[in-house]
Parts: sequence; C-alpha cells; structure tokens
Amino acid sequence: MDDLESIAEKIRTMEIRGAGRIAVAASAALRDYARTLGSLDIEEFNVKLEEAARTLVETRPTAVSLPNAVELTKRHSSLRVDEAIDEIVDNADRFITNAGEALGKIGRIGAERVRDGDVIMTHCNSHAAISIIKTAFDHGKDISVIATESRPRRQGFITIKELSDYGIPTTLIVDSAVRLTMKEVDLVVVGADSISVNGALINKIGTSQLALAAQEARRNVIVAAETYKFSPRTLLGEMVEIEDRDSDEVIDPEILKELPNLKVKNPAFDVTPAEYIDLIITEAGAFPPAMAFTIIKDYLGLELTL
Amino acid sequence: MDDLESIAEKIRTMEIRGAGRIAVAASAALRDYARTLGSLDIEEFNVKLEEAARTLVETRPTAVSLPNAVELTKRHSSLRVDEAIDEIVDNADRFITNAGEALGKIGRIGAERVRDGDVIMTHCNSHAAISIIKTAFDHGKDISVIATESRPRRQGFITIKELSDYGIPTTLIVDSAVRLTMKEVDLVVVGADSISVNGALINKIGTSQLALAAQEARRNVIVAAETYKFSPRTLLGEMVEIEDRDSDEVIDPEILKELPNLKVKNPAFDVTPAEYIDLIITEAGAFPPAMAFTIIKDYLGLELTL
Amino acid sequence: MDDLESIAEKIRTMEIRGAGRIAVAASAALRDYARTLGSLDIEEFNVKLEEAARTLVETRPTAVSLPNAVELTKRHSSLRVDEAIDEIVDNADRFITNAGEALGKIGRIGAERVRDGDVIMTHCNSHAAISIIKTAFDHGKDISVIATESRPRRQGFITIKELSDYGIPTTLIVDSAVRLTMKEVDLVVVGADSISVNGALINKIGTSQLALAAQEARRNVIVAAETYKFSPRTLLGEMVEIEDRDSDEVIDPEILKELPNLKVKNPAFDVTPAEYIDLIITEAGAFPPAMAFTIIKDYLGLELTL
Amino acid sequence: MDDLESIAEKIRTMEIRGAGRIAVAASAALRDYARTLGSLDIEEFNVKLEEAARTLVETRPTAVSLPNAVELTKRHSSLRVDEAIDEIVDNADRFITNAGEALGKIGRIGAERVRDGDVIMTHCNSHAAISIIKTAFDHGKDISVIATESRPRRQGFITIKELSDYGIPTTLIVDSAVRLTMKEVDLVVVGADSISVNGALINKIGTSQLALAAQEARRNVIVAAETYKFSPRTLLGEMVEIEDRDSDEVIDPEILKELPNLKVKNPAFDVTPAEYIDLIITEAGAFPPAMAFTIIKDYLGLELTL
Amino acid sequence: MDDLESIAEKIRTMEIRGAGRIAVAASAALRDYARTLGSLDIEEFNVKLEEAARTLVETRPTAVSLPNAVELTKRHSSLRVDEAIDEIVDNADRFITNAGEALGKIGRIGAERVRDGDVIMTHCNSHAAISIIKTAFDHGKDISVIATESRPRRQGFITIKELSDYGIPTTLIVDSAVRLTMKEVDLVVVGADSISVNGALINKIGTSQLALAAQEARRNVIVAAETYKFSPRTLLGEMVEIEDRDSDEVIDPEILKELPNLKVKNPAFDVTPAEYIDLIITEAGAFPPAMAFTIIKDYLGLELTL
Amino acid sequence: MDDLESIAEKIRTMEIRGAGRIAVAASAALRDYARTLGSLDIEEFNVKLEEAARTLVETRPTAVSLPNAVELTKRHSSLRVDEAIDEIVDNADRFITNAGEALGKIGRIGAERVRDGDVIMTHCNSHAAISIIKTAFDHGKDISVIATESRPRRQGFITIKELSDYGIPTTLIVDSAVRLTMKEVDLVVVGADSISVNGALINKIGTSQLALAAQEARRNVIVAAETYKFSPRTLLGEMVEIEDRDSDEVIDPEILKELPNLKVKNPAFDVTPAEYIDLIITEAGAFPPAMAFTIIKDYLGLELTL
Repeated sequence: MDDLESIAEKIRTMEIRGAGRIAVAASAALRDYARTLGSLDIEEFNVKLEEAARTLVETRPTAVSLPNAVELTKRHSSLRVDEAIDEIVDNADRFITNAGEALGKIGRIGAERVRDGDVIMTHCNSHAAISIIKTAFDHGKDISVIATESRPRRQGFITIKELSDYGIPTTLIVDSAVRLTMKEVDLVVVGADSISVNGALINKIGTSQLALAAQEARRNVIVAAETYKFSPRTLLGEMVEIEDRDSDEVIDPEILKELPNLKVKNPAFDVTPAEYIDLIITEAGAFPPAMAFTIIKDYLGLELTL
Repeated sequence: MDDLESIAEKIRTMEIRGAGRIAVAASAALRDYARTLGSLDIEEFNVKLEEAARTLVETRPTAVSLPNAVELTKRHSSLRVDEAIDEIVDNADRFITNAGEALGKIGRIGAERVRDGDVIMTHCNSHAAISIIKTAFDHGKDISVIATESRPRRQGFITIKELSDYGIPTTLIVDSAVRLTMKEVDLVVVGADSISVNGALINKIGTSQLALAAQEARRNVIVAAETYKFSPRTLLGEMVEIEDRDSDEVIDPEILKELPNLKVKNPAFDVTPAEYIDLIITEAGAFPPAMAFTIIKDYLGLELTL
Repeated sequence: MDDLESIAEKIRTMEIRGAGRIAVAASAALRDYARTLGSLDIEEFNVKLEEAARTLVETRPTAVSLPNAVELTKRHSSLRVDEAIDEIVDNADRFITNAGEALGKIGRIGAERVRDGDVIMTHCNSHAAISIIKTAFDHGKDISVIATESRPRRQGFITIKELSDYGIPTTLIVDSAVRLTMKEVDLVVVGADSISVNGALINKIGTSQLALAAQEARRNVIVAAETYKFSPRTLLGEMVEIEDRDSDEVIDPEILKELPNLKVKNPAFDVTPAEYIDLIITEAGAFPPAMAFTIIKDYLGLELTL
Repeated sequence: MDDLESIAEKIRTMEIRGAGRIAVAASAALRDYARTLGSLDIEEFNVKLEEAARTLVETRPTAVSLPNAVELTKRHSSLRVDEAIDEIVDNADRFITNAGEALGKIGRIGAERVRDGDVIMTHCNSHAAISIIKTAFDHGKDISVIATESRPRRQGFITIKELSDYGIPTTLIVDSAVRLTMKEVDLVVVGADSISVNGALINKIGTSQLALAAQEARRNVIVAAETYKFSPRTLLGEMVEIEDRDSDEVIDPEILKELPNLKVKNPAFDVTPAEYIDLIITEAGAFPPAMAFTIIKDYLGLELTL
Repeated sequence: MDDLESIAEKIRTMEIRGAGRIAVAASAALRDYARTLGSLDIEEFNVKLEEAARTLVETRPTAVSLPNAVELTKRHSSLRVDEAIDEIVDNADRFITNAGEALGKIGRIGAERVRDGDVIMTHCNSHAAISIIKTAFDHGKDISVIATESRPRRQGFITIKELSDYGIPTTLIVDSAVRLTMKEVDLVVVGADSISVNGALINKIGTSQLALAAQEARRNVIVAAETYKFSPRTLLGEMVEIEDRDSDEVIDPEILKELPNLKVKNPAFDVTPAEYIDLIITEAGAFPPAMAFTIIKDYLGLELTL
Repeated sequence: MDDLESIAEKIRTMEIRGAGRIAVAASAALRDYARTLGSLDIEEFNVKLEEAARTLVETRPTAVSLPNAVELTKRHSSLRVDEAIDEIVDNADRFITNAGEALGKIGRIGAERVRDGDVIMTHCNSHAAISIIKTAFDHGKDISVIATESRPRRQGFITIKELSDYGIPTTLIVDSAVRLTMKEVDLVVVGADSISVNGALINKIGTSQLALAAQEARRNVIVAAETYKFSPRTLLGEMVEIEDRDSDEVIDPEILKELPNLKVKNPAFDVTPAEYIDLIITEAGAFPPAMAFTIIKDYLGLELTL
C-alpha cells in the first residue's frame, strides 16, 4: 500500500493535478495495489480493495473524475481473487486507454460542428475545448477565436498563447465584453469541470455568463467534456458546492486591510443550466444535455432497481 | 473669445472631464462669451454665438452632455441683443443650478426605490448611482452593496473605497461572477453615459451583462442619469458608436508583441436595451425607459412639426 | 370646516368607501369649504385651503384617488380670493362630472376591444371591468365570462351574480384553475386599484397570476381604470406598499391558535408588471401601460423643470 | 362640389391609390372646395365643410391616411369665413408639403440606422422602406438586401427589380425561407399600412413573421411610416379589422371548384405587436413604438380632457 | 377469485384509496389469486390471470399506479405453472417492498437538494413532498414552508397541521398569493398524480400555476413521485384526461340554483409542462423530466422493436 | 451484383424516390445480393457485402433512410457464411415489414393526441402527418385542417386534394399567413426529412416558421417520423447540410437574366430546434425530442464504449 499511499499523497498535495491526470493515476494505483493482494482470500481482498478505494477518493473529496476512475476500476464479479485481479487490471487498462484517447476523439467529433468561417468564443483554458478548435483548424477550416481574459487567474492568457502559437487568429477581450462581442460570434465552445444528472454544467466562473449571452443572441453553445466528468452522486440528489477561493486573487491584501467594511467573494465555478447548452461533446459521441442522466447511468453501469 | 477658447482647450485635453463638469463649464463659457458681444447687431451676434457653440461642441464630438448644455444655453427668441444676452444668461444660470442639484435630487428620488434590507449590485463608478446608495443608507436603511471589479480599468476599486469609507458593507466580485452572484441581489443600480431615444442605455462595458443577468433572475434594474445624458441626435436616427480603447489596458504590450496572431478588442461601452431597464431616475423624476423619447423632446423643447 | 371634517370622518371610518366615491366626496367637500372662505385675504385663504386639503388626504394615506381629487380641486392661479373660489368650484365640478361619466366612457371604449364570440376572464369585482363586459353584451356581442372565486373574500361571487342577472353566460372557477382555463379564454379584463409611473398595475391579490398566465398563453390583458387611479407619487420614486389583511379571512382563529408554528400571510394586492398588460382603458382613451408616465404628468399638469 | 365629388370617385374606384396619394388628393380637394364657399356664413360653411369631409372619408372606410388628411385639413378656429378658408388653405398646403417631403426625410433619418456592411431583409414593396435602403446605399454604405417573394401577389418582384436596377445587390427568397435566412440578416426594414395607439403595426401579410423571426434571432426591426399612417381611432378602442382578399390570388378557381371540402383564407394584412419593433422612422423623427400614443395625440392635436 | 373481487370492490368504492395503497393492494391481490391457480395448466392459468388483471385495472380506469402494479406483478416467462406462480410471488413481493420504502428513499434523495435556510413552497397535500421537507428538517436544516390553501377542498390545511405539529415553521397563503409570495421562496416541492412520457406532470389543480410563477421568478421546481406514477400508456399517444369534479365543492348548490346563467368548472388536476420542472425525485434517483421516457420504458421493461 | 447495381441506379436517378421506398429497395437489394454469395468464404463474403453496402449508400449521400436501411440489414455475427446470410435475410425481412407497417402505426399512435374539435395546421405534404390526420378523422373526431401552400413547389396542393377528397374540411393559406392564422389552430402536425441526435428536425423549408409561430402562441407541435429518419451520423458531430435547389422554382429564368444584381436563394429544408417540438410520433411510440439520442443509439444498437 506504500505506492498507493504515495500516489494518494501526490494527489492530495496537488503534485498530480488536472481531472484527467488524477483519474489516470488513481486507476493505475488501484490496479497496481490489487496486484499485490493475490495471496489473500476474496473477502480479505475485497476489504483491502475498498479501503484503498476510499483512501484515493478522500484525497480530493470534491473532484468528480477521481471517484469515477476508482469506481470503474475496482468493480469485479468473480469470487476468485486471481480472476478478480484480472478484471481490475482490464478495467484500469481500458480506463487509462480511453482517457488517453479522449481528447483526440473529442477534437474530431467536435470539429464536425465547426463551420468554415466560424468565429468561436471560448472561456478560461480547457484542453478539450482547445482540442476541438485546433482540430477544426487542422481540417483547413478558416476559423478565428475570441478568448476571455478569465479573471481572477487570467487563464485566458494561456489560451491565447496556445492558439496564437498554433497560428489561429485570436482576439482577447475582458470578461465584461462578452455580451457586446457575442453578436460577432458564431459558436461558443467551453470545457467542463463536471456535469450533473440534469445536464447542468459546472465550470470556471463566468461560463454561465457566456452561455446566457449566447442564449440571448441565439448562438450555439458546445461543451467539451470527457465522460469521466459526469457526476454520478447527483443521481442521489447531491448538489454541487461552489468553492470560494482566496481573496488575494482579486485584491491586494494591503488594500483589503484598510477597508473595514469590505469583503471579497471569489467563487471558483458557476453553474450553467442545461437549457443554455446545445450539445455536449464526449469521446463517446455528441449528445444533448438532457442525456446526462443516461450517460451517467450507463457509464457506471447503474441499474434502476424497480 | 480667449476665455471660451481656453475652456474649450481644457475640455479638449481632458483637464476638465466628467459629463457634469464639462456641461457646466461649457454653459458658463458660452454665457460669459455672450456677455462680451453686447456691442454687435443681432445678426453678427448670432453668427458669433453659433461659432462659439460649434467650437465648444467640437472639443469632444462623442460627448452627449456637451451639445445638450450648449443647445440649452444658446437659445433665445429676442431680436434685441441685450435681451438675447439676458435670455442666455438666464439659460446658463438655470442649467448650472439644475446640474448642481441633480445628484442630490437623483439620490433622494432613487433612495425611495430601495427597501430596507436590500442587497444592491453596482458596476464601475457612477456618482449618480452612488448618490442613490448613500442616500438610502443615510435614511437608515440596512443595505449592502456588491460591486464589480470593472476590468480593465478597475474603477470598481474607487467604488468600494468610497462605500466602505462611508460605512456601507460592500462585497467585491470579479466581473465573471455577476450571474452567479445575482441570486443574492435585490436591486441593480448603475449610472449612464448616455440614453438614446428608444430608451437604450450606453454605459461602461459590462453594464449590459449585469442587466441581462438581472433580467434572467427577475431583479429590477435602475439607471441613475442626469437629464443632460439624454441624446437628442438619436431622434434623427443617429446610432451611438462604441469607442475602442487602447490594448495596453488589457495586456502588457511586451506580451502582445510576441503573439503575432493575437489582437485585442477593448470596447469602452456597451448598449443595454430598454427592456432590461425598469426605471430611469433623473433629477426630474422616475420614469420607464420607454419615456426617453418624451424626455428628450421636452428637454430640448423640440416640436413635432407635422 | 365642520362639514369638511364630517366628510373626512366618514372617509376615515370607511362610511364613504370605494375609490370613486371617496374622490368625489373629497372634491365636493373641498369646494364647499372654499366657498366659506370668501372673506379672507388670499394668503389666509391659501393657508386654510392647504390645511383642509391635508386633513382630507390624511384620512386614508394609502389611497390614490383621494390626493388626486384634492390636488386637482385645490389648484388656482388667481391672487383674488373670489376668482380663486371660482376656479376651485370649476375644478370640482369638472372633476365630479368626469368621475360620474368615467364608467360609461370606459365601458364604451373598452367594448370596442371585445370581439363577437369572445370568452373573457375577469378577477375579483371591478365596476370598470364589468362596465366593459356589459357594454359589449349590450352591443349584441355573443360573449361569455369566466370569473374567479377571488379568495379570501370571494368577491367573485358578487361578479357572477351581477353578470348572471344581466343575462351573460358566466362560469365560476377557483383561483387555482386560472392557468388550466386560460386556453379557453380570448381576453382578460380586470380593474385597477392604482397604476404607477412605470405602468405597473396594483390590484386585488391574484391579478398578476391572471396576467402571467395570459402572457404565457398569449392572450391580451386589458385594465379598466379611471384616470384618478394613476399614482403621481411614484414619479418621485415612491413604491407602492402591499397591505397585509387579517388572518381571519383565511383561517378560523380557533384552528390558528392550535398551530404554534403557523402564521398566515394575507396580502390584499399584488403588482402586475407593465409588460403583461396590453392596454389600459380610461375615460380619456385607450393606451399602452408605457404611457402611464405621460398620463400622470398631464393629469396633474406637472412640468418637467429642466 | 363637383370637383370634390370627382376626386372622391377616383379614390373610391382606386384610380387614385396608395396611402400617400389618397391623402394628398383628399387634402387638396377639401382645400379647393372650401375656397368655393366664401359667400356662405360661418354656420353654413361649417355644415358644408363637414359634409364634404364625410364624403371624402367614406370613399375608403378602412384607410387611415384619408381621415387623418381630412381632419388635419378641415380644422379652423376663426368665426369669420374668409379667415377660416385661409386656415384651411394653410393646413392643406402644409399637409401636402410635409407628405411630399416625408419619403425623403424618412430615407435620411432611417439611413443613419444602417451600418456599413449590413444585410437588410425587407418584405412586400414599401416606398418608405426602400427610401431608407436607397439612401443608405447613396451614402456609400456597402449593403445588400434580402427580399421576400410576398405571396400571393408577389410584390417582392417589384422590390427586387427596383433595387437591382438601382445597383443594390439583392437576394430573392420565398416567404417560407424567412426564419432560415434570418441568421444572415443584420436589420429588418418594413413599411406600414397603419400603426395603432399601442404601437402595433398593421402591414402586409407575413410582416409579423419577419418580425417574429427577427425577435427570435435578436435582429433589430425598423418600421418606415409617414406620420399620417398613425390611426387615431384606436385611441377610442377601435380594433383594426383584417381584410380577406379573393381566393383567386391563391388558387386557380377551376381547381377550387373541384374540391368541395376546401376553402381559402387570404388575409391581406397581419398585426405585429409593438414588442417586436425596435424603432419607427417617421418624417418627424425616430422613436420607439411605445410612443405611438404620443404621436397620435400630438399629430391630431388631441387634448386629454381630465 | 372472491378475495380478489373483494379487494377490487374496495378499490372501486374508494374504501382503499391513494395511489400507493391501491397499487400495493392490487399487487397482493393478484399474487394471492395466482397462488390459488396451481392446479391449472399454463394456458388456463394465463387466461385466468389476465381476467383477474383486467378486473383489477378496470376498478379505476384513470389511475396510473393500478395498471403499473398489475403489469409488474403478472409478468412471467416460465411455461410451468408452479414456476410462473413463483415468479409472480417474487414480482409482487418486490413491488410491495419497493413501494413501502419509496417514501423514505424519496425523502432522503430529495432532502439533498434542500439548502440550509431554504424557504420551500408546496401545494395541496403530497406524502412524497412532505417526506422531502421533513427529512431535510430532520437533517438539521433551518427551513420553513409556505403552503397554499388549495381550494376547493383545502387540502393545504392537512399540510399545515402536519408540518406545524412536526415543528416546522409554516406560512399559509391563499392560492391567489402564489406569484406575489414567490419572491420569498427558494424552492418549490410538489407531488405527482402521474407523469407522462414527455415529462409533463399531472397533479392537483393549481400546481402548474406554482410552476409557472417559479419559472418566471427563476426558482427551482422539484417533483416528488414514486416510479409507479409514470404513465406507460402515454407512450402510445394517449393523452391524460382532466376529471371535472362536483360544483358543490366550489359553490353552495342553493346559490347556484338561483343563477340561471352560471355554470361551474371544477377541474381536479392540471398539467405542468416539462420545461417548468427542474428535477423529479423518485425512489430510484433524481432525474430531469426529459428522462421520463427512459424511466417508463425501463420500468415496464418495454423494448423498442425496430 | 447486376441486380444490386440496377437498384442502385434507380435510386441514383430518382426512379425510386421517397425515404421509405428507397430504404425498402436498398434493404431488399442487399438481402438478395447476399444470397448470391453463399459459395464464398466468410472473409470474401464480408468484403463483397461491404462493397455492395457502400455502392448503395453512395447513390444518395445525403439521404438518412438509406444508410440506416443498409446498416440494419448487413449486420451479422456468425462466422459461417450460410448463417450470416440467414441473419441478413432476417434483418431485411424485419426491416421491410416494419417499414410497411410504420405509417399505420404512426397514424394510430398520433391520432390519440388529436382531440375532438381540433384544428390542425400542417405544412408541405407528409405521408406520416396525413396518416395521423386521417386516422383521427376515421376515429370519428370532428377535425379540420389548415394547409400551407408550401412555396416554391406548392406541395400543399397535393395535401389539400388528398384531404378534401377524404372528406376532411380543409383551408388553404399562403405561407406568409402562418402566424396570423396560428391563433385559430389547436395542434401543428408535420413530417420529417430527418431528426438529429439533439432532437432537431430537418424538414421542408418553412417548417421551422410553423414551429416558431406555434411556440409563440403556445400550441403543441407534433412531428410524425418513421424511426429510419433518425440520423446516426450526427452522433459523431456531423451537421446536416441544407441543400439549395434551382432558382427556376422561384423565378422565371428570363426575368432573372435581366436583373444583374439579383441572385436567388432557394433552400430545400430548414432546421427546427428541439425546444419547439412537443412530441415525435414514430411507429415505436411517442416520445419527446430529447429522446432522439436514445432512439438513435438503440435503433442502430450502438454501445457507449467507455
């Protein structure tokens, strides 16, 4: 369990970060740990496996990809330990392979929705959204991008550098200019932190404003999301909590100190309702947000027990 | 004309700035200049007066308060120069007095629309909006304010300092957090750069996003605007042009230089349609944006010549 | 002042009730009182008149027709008392005549908006709305009415009796059935308690639900309102307060006593926003709610002092 | 009265047709007839004048420009016949001059609302709408037009010929393609048959579909309308009736005869609600549809008698 | 068949009432009846079983839980009677157990969607909705409830007694006050009579008004519904008929008799469209109304035969 | 392969036309061709079969029913050629039978959604939509139909003849009259060219205007579509291209020649978004458009490979 604990620690301390990398590391760690349990009987095996799963999941209680990876890896039906290990190794290898190929598939499927001449607005810095944009550009489509600054951490600057270096004409705007600029936009493409059972999107603060302005101006909104971003706990009614980040990202602490009646609210995410989203592009296909329930259910192999 | 030219120069170089101060200075300058023309005959007088008026108006061709002040000051009906000068002096004095009292009146009328316990969202830094907020606070109402950062120039920092120093509990958010935060808001209060014949509001970039998010969440939006902010030229079909400001406000020029495919769009204002505005508070009363046509027409004494 | 005080007392104790009757009584009382002041000089006269006006207005501080009647009656421009009295007598007589003819005119103007075959929904018991319905019926139009019960005081029962006795086919529904029934309705006609500067309607609790359901189903909503229902104070920012009535109207006090965690909220009115209203029918014509500002301003002869 | 009767007959038989030409002819006819009545006393004069006015108005009971022209021409205040005739001559001359200049003014005011590069959709064949389009083109703006066929009478073919001959790039579509094509449109410009007190537009069948599709896609809709198109009767509650035209325009009567269960509905106009219209351009200025009440009231010099 | 017939009679006469109790009784009755058929051959067995199923279903032709319970109980695949009986006994026991646990599960899943401090509006008297409210309260959340009177039968009085006795702060309003009160509400929770294939909710008259007002004010609406409330017949196009109840519930028959032109419409239910519902909470999980098709299909094990 | 090539040619030249007939012909052709390959080994068999499939699909690259028919026919799992042929024969026979029965089933399911007294609007000429209308009429429902002309090819004339001959009261309108006429309509029923993964409908130009006007007026829209109209390629992100047809359908080429600045845009189809559609009626049941993803996935037996 040393190796597993070491991976868990790296996730906990954010040495390993990013939804995809966390998920892959956890799946591999659980697989490798399972392989060390070959000498146990099946009951001891299951107890140890559950303990390990819990250890991994608890490193980042609000991540969505982590419990998904662990759940998909640990499941097995055999009552023989050696066969159970084989199942788990298969699960992990399939999960890791799929995760590795997801960005490319999302890029290819999503690029089909981009027309020649499209102006695409994006927000923050999403690997999956950028995969769609680059793939459409690689297919020879004459596109350009409008990227928001994405205060407070200004991840838009990573996006504009990445796109400009790739040769894609890009325009930077401040977050306040989204609605004014929307009338020049043909398509909005954003990433996902997670997606809930009713198709709501949880993503970087400001995403729901893009989607609202796009809805008002009747522009399509595409969300690029690996399937491990779908949140099964919301099936059981759980609501997604919005994390508040440090005020230092927004205001100099020295100034804040001098303003006794001031506080700062710095939410990391917001929630975009399903009705503002036209299509979610995953590595398994393109579908409307109303299908999130089906994806979550199929993805974790849940049965409605009626 | 030396004094008038000197005032014109100060407006041109933005030594005199702010819609109210510009309007008052121009009205006074025209009044004082008219007084120097007592020895002319009425035709020469009118020629000189029009020249002076044009000089003033052309110092800032996109301002709205400036031509309003000049138009309201210069009008006279007498064919005797001494009487014409008296009319112009009266016009200027009345305009200057009204302008001086406008903020206070707006504060008192607007404060009536604030309920005890209200959370008010505001954007950028508007004297008129802050006048409403402070007056409501002075009336003993238990209110608090949510202020946006207002990138790129971050005028929200002036607002939070002003309100916090006044003792009003204030929360700072980034511009991207407007929609998420709107559900905690009871009332939106913003200022105006100008208001067009169809009740549309031209104001600091981002205002229309506040109004859109308020409309979605069914919160009331109040615009605080002196009557000289109403734009008579829009009666003749003129559309308001949105000024683009320097990219340096958004991105370090050194970074920009290294990104050959990047450009920056930095619009100063946006346009909020009338249907997202509940009430406009002027020093002459509270009215719905559909009344902008009437205000503009009455304000400049225009007649429909049918 | 005895007679005036006696009328004031009758208004205060609700012996005189109903917006129209209150307005007419106050106008006549002020007129008759003014006639007794012929021996005073103009300054004493004005002081006494203002005192009397205040006495009348304060009998029912939240009524709208009362201050309108007083304001329209008391105004005079002459500096001679006998002429001032003549002006006031003229004002009162004109006001009383207009008020007396208003219902009939509203009926005739409003009946033009009813088509043969229309099914009309109405709420509570409004003289002006019923005047429109009866006039359309008198014109030979084949109409029928759907009337709500209008809990808690069930004024709908007065309406159904009045209409059924008049020979108009009428259907009674509970207030909860408004939205389901709306698809059979062609036109909604309701009365007004008062109308604010931005065209919002304050009327019997439940009115805004009719209007909302009509808006959803794309049915037209007509408000029948005498001009003295327009509220000039809202020009100065004042918001209309919603009166809460006694819980006894909703629940037996004996039951309430046994439920320690229960309270009752029994609001008398609600507010219908202007965008849910298609036309306001007054005795002076039919106009859209956006015109409320103009009506209020013209009605009280207010000038925008710019 | 022979000349007046002869003009009346020409209007009746549609020898004189088109809202503008009818209005001008009626105004001139009434003026010339008044001049023949100089020997009467004022009472006889007024009786004759009213008779003549009625004769003219009754030639086309549903036209709006006709009663407006007659009302504006006949009004006079003098009790001396010679002066009354002078007033009427002045009225007529002013009306005819204004009508003659209206198209040009509408073109100039409306052209200000067209941006360089705009794609404009128009419907049917409106002189006033085309005046705006041509003036914008004359100003050097690089515009193009999408014109509907406008079944059943296909007046779109007149429009495309007129625009193509003028050198303006024009695209013809069938009426069913309006919504699909709307996403390529920047601005909708249509004419008016008449405009009612609540700002609703009555115009060629299909106009309201353009406006609805524009509203859905958030495109601006401009109505070009001379002031004599505003319908004062709607102030008194009158609703605009929609004329049904002959089935021959839609289907070959031979085919119709063979289909016993078929009927044809061929309405000439439809009604576009005010909320789908952004601006009405008249020769007297640009204003929002909510102002129709004010225009109608000012236009005919009506006073609210309160 | 005596016992089965006796249960059928009790359902028919409403001695057994309530969707859950009816479903459980029918399932048990069919199970017990099947057990008596052990001596038949499989064909006779199936004939008798179908007859019994039909008898039960026909007791209340418009109930939804009843045919669901019967369908889920009677299905079997074995061709041996003893095995078929075993299958049916298993089906019944599982159905009855699930039904018994449903309210508790709905309470637990739904309570996750309630935030600390929430004000919840509910309508009529739904066991499932109250289960959510009580569970949230049991979890220590500081909540309060606004309950409607629910005319005509005033089932709101059962709700307020139940909640007040449980210690939950509760406010009673009349049905007309729903829209006015909605601005103080955080969440709407209602029950279900049945749910159709397109996610529409059929529930107590007035429910759709709550949902409409919540939609307008952007409040979330949660429906609490056991899975046996989903209506499989709507898959085949069947529309849900709305039952009209007796006029005595609305008006004293004596009064009605005296009003010859009056009739009463007293619909028992209304239909809330799916777009006004945010989440349906069942014992099998939380899902959006668009998923009703999937639930219905999975629930009855229907296959799309393509 | 001669027979297969001959069928392919007939599809290519549109001798065989209509989505249903094409699908059935292709399925039968592939089945008959497979039967000729009994002497090959399985690898050769599969190569030949794929070649034949490709030949068929490429005859009409934009049709949706064609690749669906081919995909559903060709699939087989056996590694023995004789068994593979049996599977293919079964596939084809089942597909052809289903297709043959689809119209009747759609008629029966859809007719359930038609109420007695309904006025139904339809567009163009859809077998499936007409099947619903006729079946409802056969069931004795007192219905009538409003049919659009459907320019440019006026397929509405086929519809009105078909319905009138069947005895159904029918009204013909031009396409521009849809919105005006919608207020007399109870239900819109249209056919489908294809349906995409997000529930969007691709159908004859003008369909989306009917749906938009129905949405505005709150009327239900039903789409009648065989399951082979669902487009699986959209799962992979593909967008549906809108074919532009010849200008001769819209304008006489001689006129066009004389108008150098004119072009014609004659799109064959438009796209109706899912939110304007209430229910899709297929031969497999009635479901909301949000279910298109599930139907497509189930229909082609696709698995989400996660």
